[in-house]
Amino acid sequence: MGLMSETVVQTVIPAAAAVGIMFALLQWFLVSKVSVSGGSREKENLMGDEEEDADDDAVVLKCAEIQSAISVGATSFLFTEYKYLGIFTVVFGAIIFLFLGSVKGFSTESEPCTYSKDILCKPALANAAFSTIAFLLGAVTSVLSGFLGMKIATFANARTTLEARKGVGRAFITAFRSGAVMGFLLAANGLLVLYISINVFRLYYGDDWEGLYESITGYGLGGSSMALFGRVGGGIYTKAADVGADLVGKVERNIPEDDPRNPAVIADNVGDNVGDIAGMGSDLFGSYAESSCAALFVASISSFGISHDFAGMSYPLIISSMGIVVCLITTLFATDFFEIKTVKEIEPSLKRQLLISTILMTIGIAIVSFVALPSQFTLFNFGSEKIVKNWHLFFCVSIGLWAGLAIGYSTEYYTSNAYSPVQDVADSCRTGAATNVIFGLALGYKSVIVPIFAIAVAIFVSFSLAAMYGIAVAALGMLSTIATGLAIDAYGPISDNAGGIAEMAGMSHRIRERTDALDAAGNTTAAIGKGFAIGSAALVSLALFGAFVSRAGLKSVDALTPKVFIGLIVGAMLPYWFSAMTMKSVGSAALKMVEEVRRQFNTIPGLMEGRTKPDYATCVKISTDASLKEMIPPGALVILTPLIIGTFFGVETLAGVLAGSLVSGVQVAISASNTGGAWDNAKKYIEAGASEHARSLGPKGSDPHKAAVIGDTIGDPLKDTSGPSLNILIKLMAVESLVFAPFFATHGGLLFKWL
Amino acid sequence: MGLMSETVVQTVIPAAAAVGIMFALLQWFLVSKVSVSGGSREKENLMGDEEEDADDDAVVLKCAEIQSAISVGATSFLFTEYKYLGIFTVVFGAIIFLFLGSVKGFSTESEPCTYSKDILCKPALANAAFSTIAFLLGAVTSVLSGFLGMKIATFANARTTLEARKGVGRAFITAFRSGAVMGFLLAANGLLVLYISINVFRLYYGDDWEGLYESITGYGLGGSSMALFGRVGGGIYTKAADVGADLVGKVERNIPEDDPRNPAVIADNVGDNVGDIAGMGSDLFGSYAESSCAALFVASISSFGISHDFAGMSYPLIISSMGIVVCLITTLFATDFFEIKTVKEIEPSLKRQLLISTILMTIGIAIVSFVALPSQFTLFNFGSEKIVKNWHLFFCVSIGLWAGLAIGYSTEYYTSNAYSPVQDVADSCRTGAATNVIFGLALGYKSVIVPIFAIAVAIFVSFSLAAMYGIAVAALGMLSTIATGLAIDAYGPISDNAGGIAEMAGMSHRIRERTDALDAAGNTTAAIGKGFAIGSAALVSLALFGAFVSRAGLKSVDALTPKVFIGLIVGAMLPYWFSAMTMKSVGSAALKMVEEVRRQFNTIPGLMEGRTKPDYATCVKISTDASLKEMIPPGALVILTPLIIGTFFGVETLAGVLAGSLVSGVQVAISASNTGGAWDNAKKYIEAGASEHARSLGPKGSDPHKAAVIGDTIGDPLKDTSGPSLNILIKLMAVESLVFAPFFATHGGLLFKWL
Repeated sequence: MGLMSETVVQTVIPAAAAVGIMFALLQWFLVSKVSVSGGSREKENLMGDEEEDADDDAVVLKCAEIQSAISVGATSFLFTEYKYLGIFTVVFGAIIFLFLGSVKGFSTESEPCTYSKDILCKPALANAAFSTIAFLLGAVTSVLSGFLGMKIATFANARTTLEARKGVGRAFITAFRSGAVMGFLLAANGLLVLYISINVFRLYYGDDWEGLYESITGYGLGGSSMALFGRVGGGIYTKAADVGADLVGKVERNIPEDDPRNPAVIADNVGDNVGDIAGMGSDLFGSYAESSCAALFVASISSFGISHDFAGMSYPLIISSMGIVVCLITTLFATDFFEIKTVKEIEPSLKRQLLISTILMTIGIAIVSFVALPSQFTLFNFGSEKIVKNWHLFFCVSIGLWAGLAIGYSTEYYTSNAYSPVQDVADSCRTGAATNVIFGLALGYKSVIVPIFAIAVAIFVSFSLAAMYGIAVAALGMLSTIATGLAIDAYGPISDNAGGIAEMAGMSHRIRERTDALDAAGNTTAAIGKGFAIGSAALVSLALFGAFVSRAGLKSVDALTPKVFIGLIVGAMLPYWFSAMTMKSVGSAALKMVEEVRRQFNTIPGLMEGRTKPDYATCVKISTDASLKEMIPPGALVILTPLIIGTFFGVETLAGVLAGSLVSGVQVAISASNTGGAWDNAKKYIEAGASEHARSLGPKGSDPHKAAVIGDTIGDPLKDTSGPSLNILIKLMAVESLVFAPFFATHGGLLFKWL
Repeated sequence: MGLMSETVVQTVIPAAAAVGIMFALLQWFLVSKVSVSGGSREKENLMGDEEEDADDDAVVLKCAEIQSAISVGATSFLFTEYKYLGIFTVVFGAIIFLFLGSVKGFSTESEPCTYSKDILCKPALANAAFSTIAFLLGAVTSVLSGFLGMKIATFANARTTLEARKGVGRAFITAFRSGAVMGFLLAANGLLVLYISINVFRLYYGDDWEGLYESITGYGLGGSSMALFGRVGGGIYTKAADVGADLVGKVERNIPEDDPRNPAVIADNVGDNVGDIAGMGSDLFGSYAESSCAALFVASISSFGISHDFAGMSYPLIISSMGIVVCLITTLFATDFFEIKTVKEIEPSLKRQLLISTILMTIGIAIVSFVALPSQFTLFNFGSEKIVKNWHLFFCVSIGLWAGLAIGYSTEYYTSNAYSPVQDVADSCRTGAATNVIFGLALGYKSVIVPIFAIAVAIFVSFSLAAMYGIAVAALGMLSTIATGLAIDAYGPISDNAGGIAEMAGMSHRIRERTDALDAAGNTTAAIGKGFAIGSAALVSLALFGAFVSRAGLKSVDALTPKVFIGLIVGAMLPYWFSAMTMKSVGSAALKMVEEVRRQFNTIPGLMEGRTKPDYATCVKISTDASLKEMIPPGALVILTPLIIGTFFGVETLAGVLAGSLVSGVQVAISASNTGGAWDNAKKYIEAGASEHARSLGPKGSDPHKAAVIGDTIGDPLKDTSGPSLNILIKLMAVESLVFAPFFATHGGLLFKWL
C-alpha cells in the first residue's frame, strides 16, 4: 500500500479541482476588468508613448459591437450543432445500451468476473446501463468544455484588441489569461466529473472494480465522440469561411484580411471560436478523459484492483490533480513574474511556459509516485503477470511528459518563422506558388521524424517498464500539464480574433502590427498544441488499444495472420479516406462562399467603397449549413468502422485496424498540421518584413507574397480541419472498440463465422 | 507430382523467353522502318487528307537532330549514373559477402539445414558468395533493362512524331510497338537470367534447395537496389528540368511547353527517358525479380523443395512464361486486330489491353496450375504445416491478377479527364490555384480506397488459401502480364517526347494536337502503370516480409510487444522522411534550374525572338549534378535502415518496421501518384477544350488554366519522383531484410543485448 489513505485521496482530488476552478474564475475576473463599454471605461493612467486611440470611445463601442456579433454567431452555431449532437447522443447511447446489454442476453443475474473467475461481478446489463450513463456524462462535459471555451474567447477577443492600444504586454496578458480560464476550467471540470462519477458508480458496484472501471470508459467515448463532430464541424465552418473570404478578398479584390467590407469576415471570426476553440476544447478534454479511463481500466485488473487499493487505483487522478497545481504556478510566470515588453518576447515567453510546467511537473510526478503508490505491485500483461515498482511509474509518466515537450519544441522549430524551415518555404515563394507548395509539403513530411521518434521512445520505455499501464500513464503524463497547454493553445485564436477586430474597427496600423505579432506567435503555439494533441492521442490510442485487446481476450495481435494484416492495411487507409472527405468538404463549402462573396461585391452598390454594409448573415448561414451537412459522412466513417469491423470481421481484424490507423494517422496528422502552420507563418514572415531577407520577398501584394497567400489558403483545411480531426479518429475508434469489446468478443466476427 | 516432367519444364521456360525476345526484336524492326533520315525516306502512298508536312525533308532532319540530342543526353547521364551505381554495387556486394559470411564465422564446413535438421546444407560462406553473385546479376540485369528501355524510347520518339503526320493511328502504333519492345525484352530477359542462374547455381548446390533459393534472393535485391537509384535519380533529374522549364517558360515568359527557345527543354525531354523509362524499367524488373525470388524461396521450404519436385518448384517461372505468351497475343489486338482511327479511341484501346491480357491470363493460370502442380502439396506456415491444393494456387495467382486490374481501372477513373474526379479538379481552378490544390489532394487521398480494398481482398484470399506462398504468387499474378503493362506504361513518355519533338521541330498545330492526345492517354496509363507497380510492390513486400520472418525464425509479429510496435510506428514514418527528401531535392534543383533559365533569357540576346539557340548543355548539367548528388541521402535511408535496425534492434523491430512502412507507404505512394496524374490531366482537359465545360475554363493562358499549371507543377515531383520511388522503398527494405536475415538472426539486436 502507498502512503496515502483513502480519506486523503478523497480530499486531495476534489480540492485540486476546486483550486483549478477558482483560479480560472480569478483569471476571468481579471480579464473582465478591461471595459468594453466606451462611456463607463475608467480613465487609466496610460504610459504616454503607448497611448493612442485610447480616448476614442467610438472605437471601443465598435469593438464591443463586433465582439457581440461574433459571440452571437458562435453561440447560435453551437446551439444548432448541439441539436444534431443531441440526436446523435441519444441514438448512440441507445446503441451502447442495446449492444452491451445483449452480451449476456439482457440477463439481470450476476456473472463470474472476467479476470477473477472465482468472484461474482455485476451483470452485463448493469455495465450496459452504467456505460451509457458514463457516455452521456462524457458527452455533456465535452460539449460544456467547448462551449465555455468559446464563451471565454469571445469575451476576451475585443478586450485583447483594446489592451493592445496600451502595449503589447497588456494585450498578451489579456489573451493569455483568457486562455488560462479555459485551460483550468476544462482540466478541473474533467477531473471533477470523473471523480464524482467514480464515487457515485461505486455506490452500486461496491467491490466489483472491474465492472466499475469498464463502465467508466464510456466517459471517454462520450467525450471523444462530441469532440469529433466539434472538430470536424467547427473545422469545416471556420475554413470554408476563411478560404472563401481570402480567395475573393485578398486575391481578387486586394483588400486586407478581416476587412469589414468582406461579407465573409464575421463568419471567419465566428469560425475561429467554434473550430479552433470549442473544437479543440472538446478534443483535448476527450484525450484527457480517455487517457484517464484507459489508465483506470488497466489498473482495475492489476493488483490495485484486486487488493482494492484506492490510492493506487486513483494514481491517474492524483497525477491530474498535481498537474492543476503545477500549471497554476506556471501560469504566474507568464502573468506575474515576467513582463512582456516587446513583440520579440512573446514566443520565448510561451515556450518558457512549456519548459517550466514540464520541469515542475517532473517533481510533482515524483512526489505523487512515491506517496500514492505502493513500492511494488502487479500488472497483468496479456495473460502474463508483471511486477512493477513505483519508480517505474515515475519514469513512465515523466517520459510521456518530456516526449510532449520534445514534440512541442520540434513543432515550434518547423512552424515558427524564427527558424530556417519556414524561412526556406518563404524563400521558395520567389519562384511562385508551385515551389512554395512543394517545399511546404516536404517540410510537413520532414516534421514527423522527431515526434515519431519521441513517441517511439516513450512507448518503448513505458511499455517495457509497466506494459499497457505504462503507456496509459505516459499519455496522462503528456496531458498532465493540459491546463498550460490549453492556455497557450487558446491564446492563438483569441489573438487572431483580436487582430480581426482591430482591422474591422478601423484601428491604426500600429495596433494591427501588435495583434499580428500576437497572432504569429499564436500560429506557432496552435501548431504546438496540435502536436501535443496528436502525440497524446497516439499514446492514448495505444493504451486504449491495449485495454481493448485485453478486454477482447486476445493474447497477441500477429501481423502474420491475414485477419490482422488486412486490418492493418485498411486501418492505415482510413486517415486518407477521412482526410479526403474533410478536405473536399472545405473545398466545396469554400466554393459556395466564394460565389456568395463575389455576388455581394458585384450586386451591392457602394460595398467596395465602404459606404454600405455587406450581408454577413448569408455567409454565416453558408458556413453553418455546409459544416452541419458535411460533418456527417466523416463522422459516420469513424463511428461506424469499429462497429462494422468488430461485428462482421471480429476482434483480430479490428485490432489490426486500430493499430494501422494509429501508425498511419499520426503521420498524416502531424504533417498536415505542420505544413499548414508553416505556410501561414511563411506568409506572416513576408508580411512582417522583420529581416532583410523577409523584406526582399515582400511587401504585401508582391508576387512572392501572393504565392505565400496561396500556400496559406491550402494549408487552412490541412491544419485546421483534416489534421486535428485525425487524432480524434484514432482515439475515438480505439475507445469505441474498448467500450464495445464485450459485445465483439461474444457476438463479433459474423462474416468469418458464416464462411 | 504434376503432369510436367523436368525436361518439359527445362524446355518451356527458355522457349518462352526466346519467343519474348524474338517478338520484341520483330516490333523493333517494324518501328525502325519509319525513316528519320529525310533524303532516303521512301515516298509512301499517304492518304490524301492526312498528308501534311510529309514532303518536308527539313522537318524530318530537324526531328532526327532533336532525337539524337535527347538520346545522347540520356545515354551520357545514364553512364554517369552507372559509375556511381558501380561503386555502390561493389561496396554493397562486399557488405553482403562479409555480413552473410560472418554468420558462421566464415566456416567452410557444411551445416545442418535450417528447415530439415536431419540433412546437411552448404556452408553459410557459400551462401554468402552465391548471394553476392546473384546480387550482382540482378544489378546488371536491372541496369540493362533500364538502359535498353531508354535506347528504345529515344529511338521511337521522333518516329512517333513523324508518323503523327500520317494520322493518329499510325503514331499510336509506333509508340505502342516501341513500348512493347521494352515490355517483352524486359520480361523475357528477367526470366531468362533467373532461369540460367538457378540452373548454374544448382550445379554447386545439388540437393540443397534451401541454400540455392536463399542465395537466388540476392537477384531481387540487386534488381531493386538499382531500381531505387534509377527511380530517385531519374525522378529528380526529370522533375528538376520539367518544373524549372515550366516555371520560367510557361508561367513567366508565356511560351508553350517544349518550346525550343527554353534552355531547359532538352533536359526535360532527356529526363522523361532516364526517369519515366529507365527508372520505371528497373523498378518493374525489380518487382518481377523479387516476387519470383519470394515465391521460389517460400516454395523451397515446402514439400516441393523437400521432395525435389522441379516442376512444382518452377511454378512461378512457368507462370511468367505463360505471361509472355499471353501478352504476345494481347499485343496483336492493339497493333493488328483493331485500328485506331480517331483520338477518342486511344484510351479505350489501352484499357482493352488490360482487360484482354487479364482474361487470357486467367485461362493461362488455370492451365499452368493444373499441369505443373501436383494436385496437393504441403507448405510451412510459420511453424505449422498447411495442405494446399492446386486449384487453391489458381485462385491465389488469379486474385492477384484481377486485383491488379481493379487497381488499374480505379486509377484510370481518378486520373483520366474523361471522368468527374479530374473534371471537378479542373472546375475548382475557377477559384484559383489554392482550391485546385485542395481538391487535388482530396482526390489523391480518396483514390487509395479501392486499391487498398483490392489489395486487402487479394491478401486475405491468397493468405488464407496458401499462406505466404499464396501472397508471393498473387504478386506474381499481378505482374504476370508485365510485358503488356510495361508496353502501355512506356507508351506514355514516348508520346510525351513525341509531342516535345513536334513542338521543337516547329510542326503544325494539327500534329501537336495529335501528339497531345496520345500524351493525355499516356498520363493516364502512366498512372495505371504506377498503380500496378505499387499494388504489386505491396504484395511482393508482404511475401518478402513473410519469407524474412520465416528465415529469421520468428513465430509471430505481435503488435502488442513494444519492440514490434515501435518498429511499426517508425516504419510508417519512413515514407514521409523519404518523400521529404525527394520533394525537397526536386524543389531545390528546380530553383537552380529556374535561375539558370532566367539568366539565359536575360543575358542571351535574341533568345526570346528565336534568333539564337539557348545553352542546353548547362541545364543538362544542372539536372545531372543535382540528381546524382541528391539521390544519395534517400538511397542511404532505404539501404541503411534495415541494416541499422536489424543489427542494433533485432529482427522483431525490423519486422515491425517492414510492416509499418508497407501499410503506410502504399497509401502515400498511391495518393501521390494519382494526385499528380489528376492535376496533369486537369490541365490537359482545360487545354484540349473538348467539352463546353472545358472551354468555359480555358483557353490556354486564362486564369483557371494558370491555376491548373500550378497544380501540374506541384504534381510533378509527387507523381514522378516521390510516389513511384516509395514502392521501391517498401520492396527493397523487405528484400534486403530477407537477404540479411541469417546475419540478423545470429548477430542482430545488439542494443537490446547490451541493455
